[in-house]
This record gives sequence, structure tokens and C-alpha cells, in this order.
Amino acid sequence: MHPINIADKLSQFSDHWSPKTIGEVGGTAIKLVKLQGDFVWHRHELEDELFLVLKGRLLLRFRDREVAVEPGELIIVPRGVEHQPAATDETHVLLVEPATTLNTGNVGNERTVDRPDRI
Amino acid sequence: MHPINIADKLSQFSDHWSPKTIGEVGGTAIKLVKLQGDFVWHRHELEDELFLVLKGRLLLRFRDREVAVEPGELIIVPRGVEHQPAATDETHVLLVEPATTLNTGNVGNERTVDRPDRI
Repeated sequence: MHPINIADKLSQFSDHWSPKTIGEVGGTAIKLVKLQGDFVWHRHELEDELFLVLKGRLLLRFRDREVAVEPGELIIVPRGVEHQPAATDETHVLLVEPATTLNTGNVGNERTVDRPDRI
Repeated sequence: MHPINIADKLSQFSDHWSPKTIGEVGGTAIKLVKLQGDFVWHRHELEDELFLVLKGRLLLRFRDREVAVEPGELIIVPRGVEHQPAATDETHVLLVEPATTLNTGNVGNERTVDRPDRI
């Protein structure tokens, strides 16, 4: 039961698209992830997913539009909604989602992280 | 499904110790609260509670010590642990906790907010 410094945690990794767990509230995980480029289109059948942008600019593409999320903003993608996260410049995001959520949702591929590292 | 600007939401209220809900991820609520002074000692029997400090300085008193949480830091208070939030200067906090969590936990008094406003 001690403070967790987000900048410290961000300094501990540099890989992209690989969420790291920094805490849990009930069954809900708090994760950090660094993004750059385009991710895979996917959806989470049962899980809502919150993206809180810390740095950079998150582009969230949906099938009918694209939304830009700036630092100090968050967006919640409801379960079942197909989306493609993307970022032109390196972007840092805090995620709030069930601990069991897979980064690639319904799509299993080489970018799938089965068990995020705990940092 | 649109970005939620945290500063915009904070500008919509000024009362202290009265959390406002800005979103939900599954059954987990995302709330904003402004703090100043000492709150009541309480615990949440079943619910972990996350405090992410946005501005100011959160003091969390436990029965055996006091922890200061600065902007850019978060702390998770596990269920069952008695705590007293406090702040010398006005402090802004983002909370992640079950939607059903009462601000005063096991203590019902005039500061209890039964149903936080949604802003």
C-alpha cells in the first residue's frame, strides 16, 4: 500500500503494444502501454476498455469514423465494438479494463500478450 | 463513444468530498472528486479503491502511518483497510472503484453521497 509513480513505471519499458499491469482494483486491472503505428482491428466480446491518454495522441478508428484522444482525455470503448488503436508519434496510455482482457481481443496473433508483465 | 476531457469535467463542480461519475468500465466507475480538509475515517468492506492524484497532494492516513500521494501518482487501498483521506490545499483526484462504492464506506453520515451525480 504505497504510491505508484506513473512516470517511474513508464521508464521501465520501451516496447510498443505490450501492456504492463501496475495494479488491480477488484478484478479490474490498471495497465500502462506505449503505442506507435497501427494496431490490429479487434473487439472485446465481454469487456469495456478505458484508454486514458498521458502523452502523445491516440487515434481510435471505428468502422464508421476515427476519434483522436489527447492527453488529459479518456475514452471508453464498449464491449463488442470493433476498433483499431493507432498513433503517429509515440503515445502513452493508461488502460482500465478487466484483468483478463487480451490486448488483441478476439484476434489471436503474434502481437497477443497472454499474460502482461507486472511492473 | 467520445473523448471525455478531465479538465472540462473538473470545471463543472466545486464542492468538496462529493464524487461525480464520469464513466463506467463494466461495473467499475470512474469518478472525479475535489478534496480539502479532513474526511471521515472509514473502510470499504468489499471494495478496493484507487486514488489517482491530478492536482494538489492527497494525504492518506492509515491507523499506523500517513502516506502522501502526489500528482502523477496513484495508490490502491485494499478492501477492509481503514483510512482517512485528507488534503491541506485543494486536491483533485480520479477514483477507480466499483460503481456501488459509497464515499464514506462503512460510516453513514451527512457526508455520505448515496448516488453520485453523473457529469
